[in-house]
Amino acid sequence: MSKPSSASPKSDGGKQRFLDVFPRIQGELLHALDQAGMPKDARDWFQQSLEYNAPGGKLNRGLSVVHTVEIIRGKPLDDTEYYKAAVLGWGVELLQAFFLVADDMMDQSITRRGQPCWFRHPNVNNIAINDSFMLEASIYHLLKLHFRGDPCYVHLLELFLETTFQTEIGQLLDLITAPEDVVDLSKFSLERHRLIVIYKTAYYSFYLPVALGMRMCHITDESHYERAKSILIPLGEYFQVQDDYLDGFAPPELLGKIGTDIIDNKCSWNINVALGLANAEQRKVLDEHYGRKSAESEAKVKQVFKEVDIPARYAEYEQGAYERLCALIDAIPEPAPGTEGLRREVFKSFLEKIYKRTK
Amino acid sequence: MSKPSSASPKSDGGKQRFLDVFPRIQGELLHALDQAGMPKDARDWFQQSLEYNAPGGKLNRGLSVVHTVEIIRGKPLDDTEYYKAAVLGWGVELLQAFFLVADDMMDQSITRRGQPCWFRHPNVNNIAINDSFMLEASIYHLLKLHFRGDPCYVHLLELFLETTFQTEIGQLLDLITAPEDVVDLSKFSLERHRLIVIYKTAYYSFYLPVALGMRMCHITDESHYERAKSILIPLGEYFQVQDDYLDGFAPPELLGKIGTDIIDNKCSWNINVALGLANAEQRKVLDEHYGRKSAESEAKVKQVFKEVDIPARYAEYEQGAYERLCALIDAIPEPAPGTEGLRREVFKSFLEKIYKRTK
Ligand SMILES: [Mg+2]
Ligand SMILES: [Mg+2]
Ligand SMILES: [Mg+2]
Ligand SMILES: [Mg+2]
Ligand SMILES: [Mg+2]
Ligand SMILES: [Mg+2]
Repeated sequence: MSKPSSASPKSDGGKQRFLDVFPRIQGELLHALDQAGMPKDARDWFQQSLEYNAPGGKLNRGLSVVHTVEIIRGKPLDDTEYYKAAVLGWGVELLQAFFLVADDMMDQSITRRGQPCWFRHPNVNNIAINDSFMLEASIYHLLKLHFRGDPCYVHLLELFLETTFQTEIGQLLDLITAPEDVVDLSKFSLERHRLIVIYKTAYYSFYLPVALGMRMCHITDESHYERAKSILIPLGEYFQVQDDYLDGFAPPELLGKIGTDIIDNKCSWNINVALGLANAEQRKVLDEHYGRKSAESEAKVKQVFKEVDIPARYAEYEQGAYERLCALIDAIPEPAPGTEGLRREVFKSFLEKIYKRTK
Repeated sequence: MSKPSSASPKSDGGKQRFLDVFPRIQGELLHALDQAGMPKDARDWFQQSLEYNAPGGKLNRGLSVVHTVEIIRGKPLDDTEYYKAAVLGWGVELLQAFFLVADDMMDQSITRRGQPCWFRHPNVNNIAINDSFMLEASIYHLLKLHFRGDPCYVHLLELFLETTFQTEIGQLLDLITAPEDVVDLSKFSLERHRLIVIYKTAYYSFYLPVALGMRMCHITDESHYERAKSILIPLGEYFQVQDDYLDGFAPPELLGKIGTDIIDNKCSWNINVALGLANAEQRKVLDEHYGRKSAESEAKVKQVFKEVDIPARYAEYEQGAYERLCALIDAIPEPAPGTEGLRREVFKSFLEKIYKRTK
């Protein structure tokens, strides 16, 4: 996701305060191994896996939980409240770490966040599978420590568990639609792209952080969750379409990385829109050159993308998505100032971080 | 584990009835993908993964849940009660399937239960990582369907989640103690073996099924769980020591497979006892030949095992373990006949299945 919004009191969007609680989080997890009587080599291993895989990203998902709680409360959080919100935020980051460690193995990726993927470390290798499991299990250990006895506990468990299943379903669909080695564009479609994006990304990146914050604030009216979902899932879809678009069309110096979706045979928004617009000749180029490990093939695909004018299609899409989302947000009944409740600001702060971002 | 006990009303220990509910379990899981609007190829994939990985074992862990509920209730279960107990039993089998699919990848195994490991199927490969995740997530989907609103629901969630973490901690210790490719017997010890066995096997195979059955019967007194744990963890330890012993010393025609622990560099009970008894010359043989992929090396290790008389050590161990477990079981206050409660029979049926088994 993009840079944190300046709406946050801190100039860094609260990132430093969030990072500052990580050692305590890590200590609580390592304590579980100490209590189990595990020897030092096992403890050290888990410590390194946590440190390497949990922080180091942009932390937007974790910060979203904290921001949601701050907005609902309508006032700054004291240290106790902050830590509880941060536990949920780090839970989302641990969930993502679990997915990413495993995704990198399944995609046989080389780097992640500018350093070698965890499984690429020569002594780690396939042990990374079990390490990913332990990142996931860490979430529930933290939830039990801090929320057992809280009426929201079972809802928090269910939210993490259901979102995990949804993400895994999305990952399955992605893996069988666009395998690393077999290119078959006849499997692609915008509808399939939509399903992959919603399940693989939108639930855990957009709905989960907000719903966790709402649960922590003891919002129990189910209709509020339905409403949040009805905004955050399309928002997540828009975010991923934009991510796909930027991969192909943002200048690398602005994006901060070189897009590889074409070479990686990704079921991206760009290729799916292009497939719907291509004539027979253009289609032949796409079939022959998409997903091939060659710069010339990539250039030919990019040429077709320009011919069918993906940038113009994207500009239309983005404007429409933005307007639909604004209308959905404006339809939320705003709680009276100074009272707790589900405020439009929860969703607006997300949308404004994303709209017309360039990286 | 060994053949189911004949104590069960059915001559097959209830295996057929348990297997007969699997299609309904599977249907409930596939329905989740239908509700998510997933296309047929994703549904078919998940169906095949479930079918290939969930049944097909001895099902002793799953059946233990059902037997525990039957013994606590003190009467046969009607179809509704049976199905709920079977959901928990299949939950344990799904948890094991999750562990085994992943363990086979980490160990680079060839076969499991007499057929190729799931990840060995050419179109599956690393997708098996995500398939293992989905087997795990299936547990929580089933729990929500059948236990949401039941006062035991949060306890069932916690039992599965904590046991998962414990098993993963045990797996980590096993992986770093006995890596596939580096033999270093100085890392082995009986204490480390004990920790691996308790965490990797005993919690999920012995404590989990019984505790789930107790929770389903709404036993809430925590001291009963502590008592159950104080018997079932040593029972699981004894079971695994026996498993290790049989791997090296049971006739393959009785065991039903050829033991490979020596060749696979396993941190097994046999090698740990041998290390404690070996003289300098024998130790040299163990260091040079343990964990090597050669029949001659294996034979040399077996010779040392015989010289230090592992079979006699095992016979002593087994007798002592059996007597200690009997004393623990006999110390349980027996509920009055005809009333519900934690009966000695829960533990006795386990112990009698295991004691002096030969396969
Ligand atoms: Mg990837
Ligand atoms: Mg991927
Ligand atoms: Mg991308
Ligand atoms: Mg194995
Ligand atoms: Mg293993
Ligand atoms: Mg064995």
